[in-house]
Amino acid sequence: MQLQYPSLMAAVATSLNGSIGNFTQEPPKNFGFVLYDSFDVLDISGSIEPLYLLSSSHQLNLSLIAESMAPVYMRPAANETNPVHSHFQLSVNPTHTFEDPPQDLDVLFVPGGGGERLGNITAAVDFVRNTYPRVKYLITVCTGAGVAARAGLLDGKRATTNKASWDKIIPLGKGVQWTSPARWVVDGNIWTSSGVTAGIDLMFAFIEKFYGKDIAHRIQAVTEHKRTFDPCDDPFAAINNVPPSGHCK
Amino acid sequence: MQLQYPSLMAAVATSLNGSIGNFTQEPPKNFGFVLYDSFDVLDISGSIEPLYLLSSSHQLNLSLIAESMAPVYMRPAANETNPVHSHFQLSVNPTHTFEDPPQDLDVLFVPGGGGERLGNITAAVDFVRNTYPRVKYLITVCTGAGVAARAGLLDGKRATTNKASWDKIIPLGKGVQWTSPARWVVDGNIWTSSGVTAGIDLMFAFIEKFYGKDIAHRIQAVTEHKRTFDPCDDPFAAINNVPPSGHCK
Repeated sequence: MQLQYPSLMAAVATSLNGSIGNFTQEPPKNFGFVLYDSFDVLDISGSIEPLYLLSSSHQLNLSLIAESMAPVYMRPAANETNPVHSHFQLSVNPTHTFEDPPQDLDVLFVPGGGGERLGNITAAVDFVRNTYPRVKYLITVCTGAGVAARAGLLDGKRATTNKASWDKIIPLGKGVQWTSPARWVVDGNIWTSSGVTAGIDLMFAFIEKFYGKDIAHRIQAVTEHKRTFDPCDDPFAAINNVPPSGHCK
Repeated sequence: MQLQYPSLMAAVATSLNGSIGNFTQEPPKNFGFVLYDSFDVLDISGSIEPLYLLSSSHQLNLSLIAESMAPVYMRPAANETNPVHSHFQLSVNPTHTFEDPPQDLDVLFVPGGGGERLGNITAAVDFVRNTYPRVKYLITVCTGAGVAARAGLLDGKRATTNKASWDKIIPLGKGVQWTSPARWVVDGNIWTSSGVTAGIDLMFAFIEKFYGKDIAHRIQAVTEHKRTFDPCDDPFAAINNVPPSGHCK
Protein backbone atom coordinates (compact mmCIF):
# COMPACT_ATOMS: atom_id res chain seq x y z
CA MET A 1 0.00 0.00 0.00
CA GLN A 2 1.53 3.31 -1.05
CA LEU A 3 0.59 6.17 1.21
CA GLN A 4 1.80 9.44 -0.16
CA TYR A 5 1.50 11.67 2.91
CA PRO A 6 1.33 9.33 5.82
CA SER A 7 3.64 10.63 8.53
CA LEU A 8 3.89 13.53 10.91
CA MET A 9 6.78 14.77 8.79
CA ALA A 10 4.66 14.76 5.67
CA ALA A 11 1.80 16.39 7.57
CA VAL A 12 4.15 19.29 8.19
CA ALA A 13 5.67 19.41 4.72
CA THR A 14 2.40 19.30 2.83
CA SER A 15 0.88 22.15 4.80
CA LEU A 16 3.47 24.59 3.61
CA ASN A 17 2.64 25.17 -0.03
CA GLY A 18 3.88 28.64 -0.68
CA SER A 19 4.03 29.66 2.94
CA ILE A 20 7.70 29.21 3.66
CA GLY A 21 8.91 32.48 5.12
CA ASN A 22 10.76 35.04 3.05
CA PHE A 23 13.79 35.94 5.10
CA THR A 24 16.70 38.08 4.05
CA GLN A 25 19.13 35.93 5.98
CA GLU A 26 19.81 32.26 5.26
CA PRO A 27 18.29 30.33 8.16
CA PRO A 28 20.50 27.94 10.15
CA LYS A 29 21.01 24.57 8.50
CA ASN A 30 23.64 22.53 10.34
CA PHE A 31 22.90 21.65 13.95
CA GLY A 32 25.48 20.10 16.28
CA PHE A 33 24.31 18.63 19.59
CA VAL A 34 26.98 18.05 22.26
CA LEU A 35 26.72 14.77 24.20
CA TYR A 36 28.53 13.83 27.38
CA ASP A 37 28.12 11.10 29.98
CA SER A 38 24.96 11.54 32.09
CA PHE A 39 23.39 14.04 29.71
CA ASP A 40 19.64 14.57 29.87
CA VAL A 41 17.73 12.84 27.07
CA LEU A 42 14.68 15.11 27.09
CA ASP A 43 16.93 18.18 26.87
CA ILE A 44 18.10 17.03 23.46
CA SER A 45 14.99 15.33 22.11
CA GLY A 46 12.70 18.22 23.06
CA SER A 47 14.61 20.23 20.44
CA ILE A 48 15.52 17.43 18.02
CA GLU A 49 11.85 16.51 17.53
CA PRO A 50 10.58 19.88 16.18
CA LEU A 51 13.76 20.25 14.12
CA TYR A 52 13.23 16.75 12.70
CA LEU A 53 9.74 17.75 11.56
CA LEU A 54 11.16 21.01 10.19
CA SER A 55 13.70 18.98 8.21
CA SER A 56 10.91 17.65 6.00
CA SER A 57 10.57 21.07 4.38
CA HIS A 58 13.95 22.70 5.07
CA GLN A 59 17.26 21.05 4.34
CA LEU A 60 18.77 20.47 7.80
CA ASN A 61 21.61 18.31 9.04
CA LEU A 62 22.03 16.89 12.53
CA SER A 63 25.34 15.97 14.15
CA LEU A 64 25.70 14.41 17.60
CA ILE A 65 29.17 15.19 18.89
CA ALA A 66 30.92 13.48 21.80
CA GLU A 67 34.38 12.73 23.16
CA SER A 68 34.45 9.39 21.33
CA MET A 69 32.18 7.41 19.03
CA ALA A 70 31.11 5.13 21.89
CA PRO A 71 27.44 5.25 22.94
CA VAL A 72 26.70 8.08 25.38
CA TYR A 73 24.47 7.33 28.37
CA MET A 74 21.74 9.07 30.23
CA ARG A 75 22.44 7.54 33.66
CA PRO A 76 23.36 8.70 37.15
CA ALA A 77 26.73 10.48 37.04
CA ALA A 78 29.88 8.68 38.13
CA ASN A 79 29.93 9.83 41.74
CA GLU A 80 26.20 10.21 42.15
CA THR A 81 24.46 7.86 44.53
CA ASN A 82 21.87 5.39 43.26
CA PRO A 83 20.43 4.50 46.66
CA VAL A 84 17.53 2.35 45.48
CA HIS A 85 19.61 0.46 42.89
CA SER A 86 17.53 1.36 39.86
CA HIS A 87 18.74 0.25 36.48
CA PHE A 88 17.30 2.96 34.33
CA GLN A 89 19.49 4.20 31.51
CA LEU A 90 19.47 4.84 27.79
CA SER A 91 22.25 5.38 25.27
CA VAL A 92 22.44 7.26 21.98
CA ASN A 93 25.12 7.09 19.33
CA PRO A 94 27.37 10.01 18.36
CA THR A 95 28.00 10.83 14.72
CA HIS A 96 31.19 12.86 15.31
CA THR A 97 33.90 13.38 17.92
CA PHE A 98 35.14 16.58 19.54
CA GLU A 99 38.45 16.02 17.71
CA ASP A 100 36.82 15.64 14.31
CA PRO A 101 33.57 17.62 14.32
CA PRO A 102 31.65 18.96 11.31
CA GLN A 103 33.34 22.11 10.03
CA ASP A 104 30.26 24.02 9.00
CA LEU A 105 28.01 24.09 12.08
CA ASP A 106 25.51 26.91 12.28
CA VAL A 107 24.09 26.04 15.69
CA LEU A 108 25.81 24.47 18.68
CA PHE A 109 23.40 22.93 21.21
CA VAL A 110 24.41 22.03 24.78
CA PRO A 111 22.09 19.94 26.98
CA GLY A 112 22.14 19.61 30.76
CA GLY A 113 22.32 16.51 32.91
CA GLY A 114 23.92 15.25 36.09
CA GLY A 115 27.21 14.80 34.28
CA GLU A 116 27.45 18.53 33.88
CA ARG A 117 28.19 18.92 37.59
CA LEU A 118 29.53 15.53 38.58
CA GLY A 119 31.34 13.98 35.68
CA ASN A 120 34.61 14.83 34.06
CA ILE A 121 33.33 16.81 31.12
CA THR A 122 36.40 18.98 30.58
CA ALA A 123 36.55 17.79 26.97
CA ALA A 124 32.97 18.94 26.36
CA VAL A 125 33.63 22.32 27.99
CA ASP A 126 36.76 22.80 25.87
CA PHE A 127 34.90 21.80 22.70
CA VAL A 128 32.10 24.28 23.41
CA ARG A 129 34.63 27.07 24.14
CA ASN A 130 36.62 26.39 20.97
CA THR A 131 33.59 25.90 18.71
CA TYR A 132 31.50 28.90 19.73
CA PRO A 133 33.52 31.42 17.65
CA ARG A 134 32.79 29.37 14.52
CA VAL A 135 28.99 29.02 14.88
CA LYS A 136 26.16 31.47 14.35
CA TYR A 137 24.12 30.51 17.43
CA LEU A 138 24.67 28.80 20.76
CA ILE A 139 21.70 27.17 22.49
CA THR A 140 21.76 25.71 25.99
CA VAL A 141 18.90 23.88 27.69
CA CYS A 142 18.53 23.31 31.44
CA THR A 143 21.87 22.98 33.23
CA GLY A 144 23.64 23.05 29.86
CA ALA A 145 24.07 26.73 30.73
CA GLY A 146 26.59 25.49 33.31
CA VAL A 147 28.74 24.05 30.52
CA ALA A 148 28.65 27.31 28.59
CA ALA A 149 29.37 29.23 31.81
CA ARG A 150 32.38 27.02 32.55
CA ALA A 151 33.55 27.70 29.01
CA GLY A 152 33.38 31.44 29.81
CA LEU A 153 30.90 32.12 27.02
CA LEU A 154 28.18 33.66 29.17
CA ASP A 155 30.32 36.26 30.94
CA GLY A 156 28.69 39.68 30.70
CA LYS A 157 25.55 38.19 29.17
CA ARG A 158 22.01 37.55 30.36
CA ALA A 159 21.28 33.84 30.71
CA THR A 160 19.09 31.41 32.60
CA THR A 161 19.12 27.79 33.73
CA ASN A 162 16.98 25.21 35.57
CA LYS A 163 15.45 26.89 38.62
CA ALA A 164 15.62 23.61 40.59
CA SER A 165 19.42 23.60 40.08
CA TRP A 166 19.91 27.36 40.37
CA ASP A 167 22.20 27.35 43.41
CA LYS A 168 24.43 24.70 41.84
CA ILE A 169 24.80 26.36 38.45
CA ILE A 170 25.14 30.10 39.02
CA PRO A 171 28.48 29.79 40.87
CA LEU A 172 29.89 28.32 37.62
CA GLY A 173 29.52 31.72 35.93
CA LYS A 174 30.25 34.58 38.30
CA GLY A 175 30.30 37.15 35.49
CA VAL A 176 26.91 36.09 34.12
CA GLN A 177 23.71 38.14 34.50
CA TRP A 178 21.71 35.11 35.69
CA THR A 179 18.06 35.88 35.03
CA SER A 180 14.98 34.73 36.93
CA PRO A 181 12.10 34.31 36.34
CA ALA A 182 12.75 33.40 32.73
CA ARG A 183 11.59 30.40 30.70
CA TRP A 184 14.28 31.33 28.21
CA VAL A 185 16.61 34.24 27.51
CA VAL A 186 18.12 35.53 24.27
CA ASP A 187 21.25 37.70 24.45
CA GLY A 188 22.93 38.29 21.12
CA ASN A 189 23.45 34.93 19.49
CA ILE A 190 23.16 32.95 22.72
CA TRP A 191 19.84 31.35 23.65
CA THR A 192 19.55 29.76 27.11
CA SER A 193 16.50 28.03 28.53
CA SER A 194 15.34 27.05 31.98
CA GLY A 195 14.81 23.38 32.90
CA VAL A 196 14.18 20.50 30.50
CA THR A 197 10.78 21.17 28.86
CA ALA A 198 11.43 24.93 28.79
CA GLY A 199 13.85 23.97 26.04
CA ILE A 200 10.94 22.89 23.85
CA ASP A 201 9.48 26.40 24.10
CA LEU A 202 12.88 27.91 23.33
CA MET A 203 13.17 25.76 20.20
CA PHE A 204 9.69 26.72 18.97
CA ALA A 205 10.62 30.40 19.41
CA PHE A 206 13.88 29.75 17.54
CA ILE A 207 12.04 28.04 14.68
CA GLU A 208 9.46 30.83 14.52
CA LYS A 209 12.19 33.47 14.34
CA PHE A 210 14.30 31.85 11.65
CA TYR A 211 11.86 29.75 9.61
CA GLY A 212 8.57 31.57 10.15
CA LYS A 213 5.40 31.52 12.17
CA ASP A 214 3.48 29.24 9.80
CA ILE A 215 5.86 26.31 10.08
CA ALA A 216 6.23 26.80 13.84
CA HIS A 217 2.46 26.66 14.27
CA ARG A 218 2.19 23.63 12.04
CA ILE A 219 4.88 21.74 13.97
CA GLN A 220 3.09 22.72 17.16
CA ALA A 221 -0.19 21.26 15.84
CA VAL A 222 1.53 17.99 14.95
CA THR A 223 3.54 17.61 18.17
CA GLU A 224 0.54 18.88 20.19
CA HIS A 225 2.88 20.95 22.32
CA LYS A 226 1.13 23.54 24.48
CA ARG A 227 3.64 26.29 23.87
CA THR A 228 4.64 29.04 26.23
CA PHE A 229 4.99 32.07 23.96
CA ASP A 230 6.26 34.59 26.53
CA PRO A 231 9.86 33.97 27.64
CA CYS A 232 9.07 35.69 30.96
CA ASP A 233 6.25 33.24 31.82
CA ASP A 234 8.14 31.08 34.32
CA PRO A 235 6.14 29.79 37.30
CA PHE A 236 8.99 27.47 38.27
CA ALA A 237 11.18 30.28 39.60
CA ALA A 238 8.74 30.79 42.49
CA ILE A 239 8.05 27.06 42.85
CA ASN A 240 11.78 26.47 43.27
CA ASN A 241 12.27 29.54 45.51
CA VAL A 242 14.60 31.37 43.13
CA PRO A 243 14.59 35.14 43.84
CA PRO A 244 14.08 37.62 40.97
CA SER A 245 17.17 38.83 39.15
CA GLY A 246 17.93 40.33 35.75
CA HIS A 247 15.52 40.93 32.87
CA CYS A 248 14.07 38.04 30.92
CA LYS A 249 13.83 40.11 27.73
CA MET B 1 34.86 18.37 45.07
CA GLN B 2 32.21 16.12 46.58
CA LEU B 3 28.70 17.41 46.05
CA GLN B 4 26.21 15.38 47.94
CA TYR B 5 22.95 16.44 46.27
CA PRO B 6 23.99 17.95 43.00
CA SER B 7 21.70 16.62 40.31
CA LEU B 8 18.09 16.82 39.23
CA MET B 9 17.75 13.20 40.34
CA ALA B 10 19.01 14.02 43.80
CA ALA B 11 16.79 17.11 43.92
CA VAL B 12 13.85 14.78 43.51
CA ALA B 13 15.08 12.08 45.90
CA THR B 14 15.95 14.42 48.75
CA SER B 15 12.59 16.16 48.67
CA LEU B 16 10.79 12.98 49.57
CA ASN B 17 11.73 12.32 53.18
CA GLY B 18 8.75 10.48 54.58
CA SER B 19 6.40 11.50 51.81
CA ILE B 20 6.51 8.45 49.58
CA GLY B 21 2.91 7.39 49.08
CA ASN B 22 1.35 4.58 51.03
CA PHE B 23 -0.33 2.40 48.43
CA THR B 24 -1.92 -0.96 48.97
CA GLN B 25 -0.73 -2.21 45.58
CA GLU B 26 2.90 -2.57 44.61
CA PRO B 27 3.56 0.15 42.01
CA PRO B 28 4.97 -0.82 38.61
CA LYS B 29 8.70 -1.40 38.58
CA ASN B 30 9.83 -2.87 35.27
CA PHE B 31 9.25 -0.75 32.16
CA GLY B 32 9.73 -2.05 28.64
CA PHE B 33 9.82 0.42 25.75
CA VAL B 34 9.28 -0.97 22.25
CA LEU B 35 11.55 0.43 19.53
CA TYR B 36 11.15 0.06 15.78
CA ASP B 37 12.67 1.77 12.75
CA SER B 38 11.46 5.38 12.35
CA PHE B 39 10.12 5.60 15.89
CA ASP B 40 9.60 9.03 17.40
CA VAL B 41 12.30 10.03 19.87
CA LEU B 42 10.23 12.53 21.87
CA ASP B 43 7.47 9.94 22.30
CA ILE B 44 9.84 7.78 24.33
CA SER B 45 11.98 10.41 26.06
CA GLY B 46 8.95 12.42 27.19
CA SER B 47 8.12 9.44 29.40
CA ILE B 48 11.63 8.13 30.08
CA GLU B 49 12.70 11.47 31.59
CA PRO B 50 10.14 11.67 34.43
CA LEU B 51 10.57 7.93 35.09
CA TYR B 52 14.35 8.42 35.23
CA LEU B 53 13.91 11.07 37.91
CA LEU B 54 11.43 8.79 39.70
CA SER B 55 14.05 6.03 39.65
CA SER B 56 16.17 7.98 42.12
CA SER B 57 13.66 7.22 44.88
CA HIS B 58 11.83 4.12 43.55
CA GLN B 59 13.60 1.04 42.27
CA LEU B 60 12.78 1.00 38.55
CA ASN B 61 14.25 -0.87 35.62
CA LEU B 62 14.20 0.22 31.99
CA SER B 63 14.38 -2.11 28.99
CA LEU B 64 14.47 -0.97 25.36
CA ILE B 65 13.21 -3.82 23.20
CA ALA B 66 13.63 -4.13 19.44
CA GLU B 67 13.76 -6.70 16.67
CA SER B 68 17.54 -6.94 16.99
CA MET B 69 20.28 -5.41 19.11
CA ALA B 70 21.26 -3.07 16.26
CA PRO B 71 20.79 0.68 16.85
CA VAL B 72 17.24 1.85 16.10
CA TYR B 73 16.78 5.07 14.17
CA MET B 74 14.49 8.03 14.28
CA ARG B 75 14.55 8.84 10.56
CA PRO B 76 12.12 9.09 7.66
CA ALA B 77 10.49 5.70 7.11
CA ALA B 78 11.69 3.46 4.31
CA ASN B 79 9.23 4.55 1.64
CA GLU B 80 8.74 8.07 2.86
CA THR B 81 10.00 10.88 0.70
CA ASN B 82 12.78 13.16 1.89
CA PRO B 83 12.32 15.83 -0.75
CA VAL B 84 14.77 18.39 0.58
CA HIS B 85 17.51 15.80 1.30
CA SER B 86 17.88 16.51 4.97
CA HIS B 87 20.21 14.33 6.97
CA PHE B 88 18.56 14.49 10.34
CA GLN B 89 18.50 11.27 12.31
CA LEU B 90 19.37 9.84 15.71
CA SER B 91 19.83 6.29 16.95
CA VAL B 92 19.36 4.66 20.33
CA ASN B 93 20.54 1.24 21.47
CA PRO B 94 18.21 -1.59 22.48
CA THR B 95 18.86 -3.63 25.61
CA HIS B 96 16.72 -6.64 24.60
CA THR B 97 15.21 -8.26 21.52
CA PHE B 98 11.62 -9.27 20.83
CA GLU B 99 12.80 -12.90 20.89
CA ASP B 100 14.50 -12.59 24.27
CA PRO B 101 12.71 -9.88 26.24
CA PRO B 102 12.66 -9.37 30.02
CA GLN B 103 10.23 -11.85 31.58
CA ASP B 104 8.92 -9.65 34.37
CA LEU B 105 7.69 -6.50 32.65
CA ASP B 106 5.03 -4.51 34.49
CA VAL B 107 4.52 -1.83 31.83
CA LEU B 108 4.77 -2.12 28.05
CA PHE B 109 5.24 1.24 26.29
CA VAL B 110 4.66 1.73 22.56
CA PRO B 111 5.75 4.96 20.84
CA GLY B 112 4.59 6.34 17.52
CA GLY B 113 6.60 7.38 14.50
CA GLY B 114 6.52 7.25 10.73
CA GLY B 115 7.59 3.61 10.82
CA GLU B 116 4.29 2.72 12.41
CA ARG B 117 2.50 3.36 9.13
CA LEU B 118 5.22 2.97 6.55
CA GLY B 119 7.75 0.44 7.73
CA ASN B 120 7.58 -3.29 8.11
CA ILE B 121 6.90 -3.45 11.83
CA THR B 122 5.08 -6.78 11.88
CA ALA B 123 7.59 -8.06 14.44
CA ALA B 124 6.80 -5.15 16.78
CA VAL B 125 3.05 -5.64 16.35
CA ASP B 126 3.40 -9.37 17.11
CA PHE B 127 5.57 -8.66 20.14
CA VAL B 128 3.05 -6.17 21.54
CA ARG B 129 0.18 -8.63 20.94
CA ASN B 130 2.01 -11.53 22.62
CA THR B 131 3.38 -9.49 25.53
CA TYR B 132 0.23 -7.60 26.57
CA PRO B 133 -1.31 -10.59 28.46
CA ARG B 134 1.81 -10.76 30.66
CA VAL B 135 2.03 -7.08 31.70
CA LYS B 136 0.01 -5.01 34.14
CA TYR B 137 -0.27 -1.89 31.97
CA LEU B 138 -0.01 -0.93 28.31
CA ILE B 139 0.85 2.67 27.42
CA THR B 140 0.83 4.09 23.91
CA VAL B 141 1.88 7.60 22.90
CA CYS B 142 0.95 9.38 19.67
CA THR B 143 0.51 6.98 16.75
CA GLY B 144 1.75 4.12 18.94
CA ALA B 145 -1.99 3.52 19.35
CA GLY B 146 -1.88 2.32 15.76
CA VAL B 147 0.53 -0.46 16.74
CA ALA B 148 -1.72 -1.56 19.60
CA ALA B 149 -4.75 -1.32 17.29
CA ARG B 150 -3.04 -3.51 14.67
CA ALA B 151 -2.31 -5.97 17.48
CA GLY B 152 -6.05 -6.06 18.22
CA LEU B 153 -5.56 -4.88 21.80
CA LEU B 154 -7.79 -1.81 21.59
CA ASP B 155 -10.91 -3.53 20.21
CA GLY B 156 -13.93 -2.59 22.29
CA LYS B 157 -11.94 -0.05 24.26
CA ARG B 158 -11.79 3.74 24.39
CA ALA B 159 -8.48 5.06 23.04
CA THR B 160 -6.97 8.12 21.41
CA THR B 161 -4.08 9.02 19.14
CA ASN B 162 -2.41 12.03 17.48
CA LYS B 163 -5.11 14.31 16.10
CA ALA B 164 -2.87 15.32 13.16
CA SER B 165 -2.70 11.65 12.12
CA TRP B 166 -6.28 10.76 13.05
CA ASP B 167 -7.47 9.75 9.59
CA LYS B 168 -4.44 7.50 9.08
CA ILE B 169 -4.64 5.69 12.41
CA ILE B 170 -8.30 5.06 13.14
CA PRO B 171 -8.78 2.69 10.16
CA LEU B 172 -6.19 0.42 11.84
CA GLY B 173 -8.66 -0.35 14.64
CA LYS B 174 -12.23 -0.57 13.38
CA GLY B 175 -13.49 -2.00 16.69
CA VAL B 176 -11.96 0.79 18.77
CA GLN B 177 -13.95 3.58 20.44
CA TRP B 178 -11.62 6.28 19.11
CA THR B 179 -12.03 9.30 21.37
CA SER B 180 -11.68 13.00 20.55
CA PRO B 181 -11.05 15.48 22.03
CA ALA B 182 -8.79 13.71 24.50
CA ARG B 183 -5.23 14.48 25.58
CA TRP B 184 -5.13 10.98 26.98
CA VAL B 185 -7.58 8.15 27.72
CA VAL B 186 -7.50 5.40 30.33
CA ASP B 187 -9.61 2.28 29.75
CA GLY B 188 -8.88 -0.57 32.12
CA ASN B 189 -5.14 -1.16 32.09
CA ILE B 190 -4.59 0.57 28.75
CA TRP B 191 -3.44 4.19 28.68
CA THR B 192 -3.32 5.94 25.28
CA SER B 193 -2.25 9.53 24.63
CA SER B 194 -2.69 11.97 21.83
CA GLY B 195 0.34 13.32 19.91
CA VAL B 196 3.94 13.45 21.14
CA THR B 197 4.00 15.88 24.10
CA ALA B 198 0.56 14.73 25.27
CA GLY B 199 2.48 11.63 26.31
CA ILE B 200 4.37 13.69 28.91
CA ASP B 201 1.05 14.61 30.53
CA LEU B 202 -0.08 10.98 30.42
CA MET B 203 3.12 9.88 32.18
CA PHE B 204 2.75 12.51 34.91
CA ALA B 205 -0.82 11.28 35.51
CA PHE B 206 0.48 7.69 35.59
CA ILE B 207 3.20 8.60 38.11
CA GLU B 208 0.72 10.52 40.25
CA LYS B 209 -1.68 7.57 40.31
CA PHE B 210 0.83 4.87 41.17
CA TYR B 211 3.60 6.68 43.09
CA GLY B 212 1.74 9.63 44.59
CA LYS B 213 1.03 13.30 44.09
CA ASP B 214 4.07 14.55 46.02
CA ILE B 215 6.64 12.88 43.80
CA ALA B 216 4.71 13.83 40.64
CA HIS B 217 4.71 17.48 41.69
CA ARG B 218 8.38 17.35 42.60
CA ILE B 219 9.34 15.85 39.23
CA GLN B 220 7.21 18.51 37.57
CA ALA B 221 9.09 21.25 39.43
CA VAL B 222 12.43 19.81 38.33
CA THR B 223 11.52 19.19 34.69
CA GLU B 224 9.59 22.50 34.60
CA HIS B 225 6.83 20.82 32.64
CA LYS B 226 3.62 22.84 32.43
CA ARG B 227 1.30 19.92 32.96
CA THR B 228 -2.17 19.44 31.58
CA PHE B 229 -4.08 17.87 34.48
CA ASP B 230 -7.41 17.28 32.71
CA PRO B 231 -7.32 14.45 30.14
CA CYS B 232 -10.18 16.15 28.27
CA ASP B 233 -8.24 19.39 27.75
CA ASP B 234 -7.26 18.86 24.12
CA PRO B 235 -7.18 21.97 21.91
CA PHE B 236 -5.47 20.03 19.13
CA ALA B 237 -8.59 18.10 18.16
CA ALA B 238 -10.16 21.31 16.85
CA ILE B 239 -6.86 22.63 15.47
CA ASN B 240 -6.51 19.44 13.44
CA ASN B 241 -10.21 19.34 12.48
CA VAL B 242 -11.01 16.08 14.23
CA PRO B 243 -14.74 15.78 15.00
CA PRO B 244 -15.90 14.88 18.53
CA SER B 245 -16.33 11.18 19.31
CA GLY B 246 -16.41 9.05 22.46
CA HIS B 247 -15.81 10.14 26.03
CA CYS B 248 -12.36 11.19 27.20
CA LYS B 249 -13.03 9.93 30.74
